[in-house]
Amino acid sequence: MTDTDDAQAQHLAEKCAEIMLRDDQCSMAHGMALVEVSPGYAKVRMPVREDMLNGHGSCHGGMMFSLADTAFAVACNTRNQKCVAQHCDVSFVSPVVAGDVLEAVATERWRQGRSGIYDVTVVNRSGDTVAEFRGRSRTVAGMHIET
Amino acid sequence: MTDTDDAQAQHLAEKCAEIMLRDDQCSMAHGMALVEVSPGYAKVRMPVREDMLNGHGSCHGGMMFSLADTAFAVACNTRNQKCVAQHCDVSFVSPVVAGDVLEAVATERWRQGRSGIYDVTVVNRSGDTVAEFRGRSRTVAGMHIET
Amino acid sequence: MTDTDDAQAQHLAEKCAEIMLRDDQCSMAHGMALVEVSPGYAKVRMPVREDMLNGHGSCHGGMMFSLADTAFAVACNTRNQKCVAQHCDVSFVSPVVAGDVLEAVATERWRQGRSGIYDVTVVNRSGDTVAEFRGRSRTVAGMHIET
Amino acid sequence: MTDTDDAQAQHLAEKCAEIMLRDDQCSMAHGMALVEVSPGYAKVRMPVREDMLNGHGSCHGGMMFSLADTAFAVACNTRNQKCVAQHCDVSFVSPVVAGDVLEAVATERWRQGRSGIYDVTVVNRSGDTVAEFRGRSRTVAGMHIET
Repeated sequence: MTDTDDAQAQHLAEKCAEIMLRDDQCSMAHGMALVEVSPGYAKVRMPVREDMLNGHGSCHGGMMFSLADTAFAVACNTRNQKCVAQHCDVSFVSPVVAGDVLEAVATERWRQGRSGIYDVTVVNRSGDTVAEFRGRSRTVAGMHIET
Repeated sequence: MTDTDDAQAQHLAEKCAEIMLRDDQCSMAHGMALVEVSPGYAKVRMPVREDMLNGHGSCHGGMMFSLADTAFAVACNTRNQKCVAQHCDVSFVSPVVAGDVLEAVATERWRQGRSGIYDVTVVNRSGDTVAEFRGRSRTVAGMHIET
Repeated sequence: MTDTDDAQAQHLAEKCAEIMLRDDQCSMAHGMALVEVSPGYAKVRMPVREDMLNGHGSCHGGMMFSLADTAFAVACNTRNQKCVAQHCDVSFVSPVVAGDVLEAVATERWRQGRSGIYDVTVVNRSGDTVAEFRGRSRTVAGMHIET
Repeated sequence: MTDTDDAQAQHLAEKCAEIMLRDDQCSMAHGMALVEVSPGYAKVRMPVREDMLNGHGSCHGGMMFSLADTAFAVACNTRNQKCVAQHCDVSFVSPVVAGDVLEAVATERWRQGRSGIYDVTVVNRSGDTVAEFRGRSRTVAGMHIET
């Protein structure tokens, strides 16, 4: 790829992420914010609110999953081809409490044809891993931006 | 087990679920309601709200996961021993839109010592499966009710 | 379904399994034998040989997975439509030693269009669960028997 | 870590791998060979034999899993603490035929206390990814080498 190609791919990734998140009422309602995006990559941040705690007083697994899933969705949609999640798994390795701020970093492990595999690590404010997520995506019809 | 044992186990399951959900701010904030509970089993319902939609206009995977995870949490905590999720996976098999109502049914597949495996099927209002979830639990110190 | 439909579906399942396993050099080389088959269901047996043990002296996880994967493959191919595995996961819940005999029972959890989800439980000679496997299949072009 | 620490950790990793594989009858019977090892890392090679093919004429998923699982086992046992697999998953992304040679590369993603997460990529002779595996380990009592 030339520098121009790189710059175009980066521009496209930013536009796709902007459109994805602008329309994503769920991520917005949960206070998620995009920190960084590039082709096949996304970093998303979410402060852990009181209404995200479970019966044990720690962050509900579903909230950690939601954050990771959003980072995954942004990362796999950075090439202007609409993509959806097929199958995801997550290991919860450390509890998280209210007031902490989580960051999910999604990277592209493999991509071919209509399929992709993305790894997402969720870390707390101290940089400690709290969850490891892996998502498998599949393209569907449609683009984010008419080109 | 005698009938009395069964009745006691059922009573304990109901009490544990009540305590779990009463303190679960996240599940409450997401409009989840317990439909049914018994030892190793839970059914939880959640209407899909506008603020649960993703950028594709369908229910965010994280919301379906959260519902399944709550049913799993209730089911694995029905025996008064505190349990947490270690590892979960989910296959999203059909998209869900706003206005639909989801139900997650968690059943106990296997349990031994400190570990358990639970299957959760999420269905829509028509009874069609929209997600298949499996969770692996591990007991931690503490009980829900002093006995 | 009528009784005749049932009988035909059962006959087809048996024929597909026979063809699948006849050509499956790997399953044969590992001493696997079909115990039972019906539409969407398969039970496969495998004695644990010395050459299936790992460095800890217990049955290699890959051998337990192979047995479960074969039961899964038979079960998802019982309707004469060729199917392959896309994604599988397995929890190893108890160690197994040489001389034991394992049985894997595969059941169909969900199937729609080209996709299917199958649960496989692996038990030892005493009937105790040693592994819980879940496989996701996808149809490919071709049939086992010309109809 | 000093250079001396690094050299000792490397020496320990090599010794642990040697002991693990020397006693691993299954990996030996399947023609697996260690290519490279270092703390938390292992590369293992396996030629795909005729007796590793399934009913579709491609490499049995169980054989790809077994190779990945062996690389994972070596990698998580490199620190002289005995480790076993708890839960593994694998995505099969491309079929493999007889005569090809597979290599599995296991890297440590996360490790803390008794738990670890390892990623294993399986590639064919052309370097194309054929499977992506993730394993979660747990330490058990015992060491490989008395120190």
